[in-house]
Formats: sequence, structure tokens, C-alpha cells
Amino acid sequence: MTDQPAFVLIRPQMGENIGAAARAMWNFGLDRMCVAAPRDGWPNARAVAMASGAGRLLDEARLAATTAEAIGEAQYVYATTARQRDLTKPVFTPEAAMQDAAARIARGERVAVMFGPERAGLENDDIARANAIISVPVNPEFPSLNLAQCVLLTAYEWRRATEETEAVTTEMAGTEWASQIEVEKLAEHYEDRLTEAGFFFPETKAEGMKRTLRNLWSRMPLTRADIQVLHGILRQMVRWKERGD
Amino acid sequence: MTDQPAFVLIRPQMGENIGAAARAMWNFGLDRMCVAAPRDGWPNARAVAMASGAGRLLDEARLAATTAEAIGEAQYVYATTARQRDLTKPVFTPEAAMQDAAARIARGERVAVMFGPERAGLENDDIARANAIISVPVNPEFPSLNLAQCVLLTAYEWRRATEETEAVTTEMAGTEWASQIEVEKLAEHYEDRLTEAGFFFPETKAEGMKRTLRNLWSRMPLTRADIQVLHGILRQMVRWKERGD
Repeated sequence: MTDQPAFVLIRPQMGENIGAAARAMWNFGLDRMCVAAPRDGWPNARAVAMASGAGRLLDEARLAATTAEAIGEAQYVYATTARQRDLTKPVFTPEAAMQDAAARIARGERVAVMFGPERAGLENDDIARANAIISVPVNPEFPSLNLAQCVLLTAYEWRRATEETEAVTTEMAGTEWASQIEVEKLAEHYEDRLTEAGFFFPETKAEGMKRTLRNLWSRMPLTRADIQVLHGILRQMVRWKERGD
Repeated sequence: MTDQPAFVLIRPQMGENIGAAARAMWNFGLDRMCVAAPRDGWPNARAVAMASGAGRLLDEARLAATTAEAIGEAQYVYATTARQRDLTKPVFTPEAAMQDAAARIARGERVAVMFGPERAGLENDDIARANAIISVPVNPEFPSLNLAQCVLLTAYEWRRATEETEAVTTEMAGTEWASQIEVEKLAEHYEDRLTEAGFFFPETKAEGMKRTLRNLWSRMPLTRADIQVLHGILRQMVRWKERGD
């Protein structure tokens, strides 16, 4: 249960936002929520309604009366904040913060992340209790992220820091890449039929046209299924021509 | 205007979600939106109400009747989708996709990103028109991201791919780090007063206690402001003792 950071909502106002925050956490596999001094009491029916699918996080959430109580067990605490504060403090990007948190948790530390109430965000008294700040690199002309969005981005970075995901893969949909010999046979099939059809004309340009067509096939990332489709097209055109209709 | 990807909302349903998507785009500096076949027509008053602060994106959004029209001008198109589809296609993480998009745009290509309608997401007919897929690495037990969240994460990754943000900085709040000589003078001040006060007792442990205290000061990331506070604390304690009250 301590293999992930606790996400601590400080004085959250609207139940809908608490529910949305629970969803955002669970979207990225986090389920340790703490709610400190929620405005509308606890439990909160609107939070439950909004959290559909992530309601377990609310059932299991820890309720605290104050910021100090909420983060009391943590050994390292991050505070998310948009504005600069008059406090000397390390400032992490969400990515760097969650990498740091993952390293601390791997060493056995207990880590918490604080999120402020909807309108004003965390107060300086809350932030003074944190070891570090997390600041999302937003558009300075429009920096307003809501609570659930801030939770979402932080949870997303937690998952990125802890789950290996290949940057680029290919969904093969039941086929595999064509081999060179299959591409070669496709090229020959087209070259042969198109020669019969009189496509490579005039004679002086035929070699260049053939090279262009070869290059086209080689440039395409063709699967075995693609090769069959392209053979099929050509065969059908020939059949159609032979039907003569 | 072509220095960023267009975000194309395909058949969006609720105006609120279109407005929230506009906000999420503008949070990360993106402002080229296209809306294809919105369910409730266009313009949409609920979208405008929700977009507060990012309403310009809706005013300037391009309206298209079909997916084909929406992405017609783009030279490379990504489709965001949660589920695996029966289509052979490269699959990017949001980070890799936006790095790829940034590189394409730097080379002068026109790039678009498609987002599907709220319930079902993009149809296979839409996805077949895309060059690549973007898949957010969510918790497989709870993969349901809403439209604005998907837009938010993609826009966030666009900004990460294009804006250099230092991973960790320190907010100095008008002070600077203390120099070694300032830390040394602080250590001496405490050592001298605490010697007078009889803190280093018994004699046999005095050296070890002094070393522990020196090590404590050196381990702290002290600013010049911190140093002044710590001197002030000690002076005040001495004054209090001398007042004798």
C-alpha cells in the first residue's frame, strides 16, 4: 500500500471535482486518496456519483481535519501550485517530480502530493509544509488548470515514471510485414501485367517508369495482407478485361 | 498558423466537452481547433459558456461536415483511440506522437490530431484515414478518459515537446544560497553560545556533539535569509536569558 504516492486533496469544494479526481487517479493506477477538510463534509454523494468506476477510492479515502494531519505520515511532500510563491523551495516539473517520487518510494520513503482547493489553490501555509513544489508548464497566458486536470497530469506522469511503455509500436492486426521476396513478386506481377497492358510507354521512358514503380513498392511499409490485396486488385482488373463487359 | 497541429474533434456530442477541450488546448498554447459534424450544431452556446477564457478558439474553429473534409489539408494525421483496432498502424505514446508531430511541423508538414466522440470514440472508418494512432498508457482496469482529458494530455505533451522547461529549479524568493563562510560563521555563533550555555556536556562527548551540529548545518540547503533567521533566533534566546524574566 505504500508503493505509490498518496494524493491529498486540501479543502476541496465541489463533490464533482473530488469524484473527477478519483477517476483521474484510477485512470493511471493510483488509489491512495486523502481528503483534508472537504467543504461539504464527508462522505459526499456528488463525489460518489461523479466517480463512477473509481468509487472505491472514495470509500477507502482517508479523511483528515487539517493539512498537517493529512500529510503527517509522509516523509516527503510535494505541493502542486500554479503561481510563484514567496517561499524558497525546489520546483519540479510533473515529470521530474514523479520520477523523484518513484525513486523515493523505491527506497522505502512515504510520499504525498498535495492539491489545493478549486478557486485559490494551496495557501502559503500549506506550501510551507511541503518539501518541494510541482509546477505544470502551462501557457502563461492561460494557466488555469482545474483540480481534476492537475491530478490527471500528475497521475499520468506517475504512470510514465513507473510503467515501461514503448514509444512507438505497430498494431499488426493479425498480419506481419511482407518479406523482400513477396514485395519482389508483387513488383513482377504488376510489371508483367502492365507491360501487357501497354502501360510502359513510350519505350524510351519505360525503364524510368519501371524504376519509379519499384521504388514505390519499396517505400511502402507493406504487410503480407497488403500484398494479397494488391495482387487481388490486379487479378480482378485482368478478369474484368477478359470478361470484356 | 501552421506551426502547431490542428486538433480535430470528430462528431463531438456535448457542448460542455467542446468548451473544455478548447480550454485544455489553450492551457498548453494550442489554438487551431476543427469541429467535424458536431451533434448539436454550430456555434454551440454551451461550448462557449464552458470555454471561458478560451472562447477565441471556438470563434476561430473550422467547421467541417465530415472527417474527410476536416483532415483534408493535413499531410499527416494521428487518431487518438483507447481500444485496439483491427487495422495495421503505427501506435505512438502521446509523448512520442507529439515529438514526431513537432519534427514534422518543423519540416513544414501540416499535421492534425483526431479525437473521437464522447461515448464510442473514433470509428474504424475514421481511423483508417489516419497515418498513425495515439494511445494513452492508461490503467487497463480503468481506461476511460473523457474527451477533454484526452485533449489535455495530448496538448500537454505538445508543449513538453516544444518548450524547454528545466526539470528541477529552485524558487529563491528574493534570497540566494548561503556561502560556505556564512555557514561557518553560523556554526561558530552556535558553538560559542552553546558552549557558554553548557550544551556540550559531558566533556568526553563535546567533540562528537560539535561535529554532529556542524554536519547538521552543512547538510541543510541554507539560504542567506535562513542564516539570518538562525542568527536571530540565537541572539533572541541570549537576550531573553539576559533579561532574566
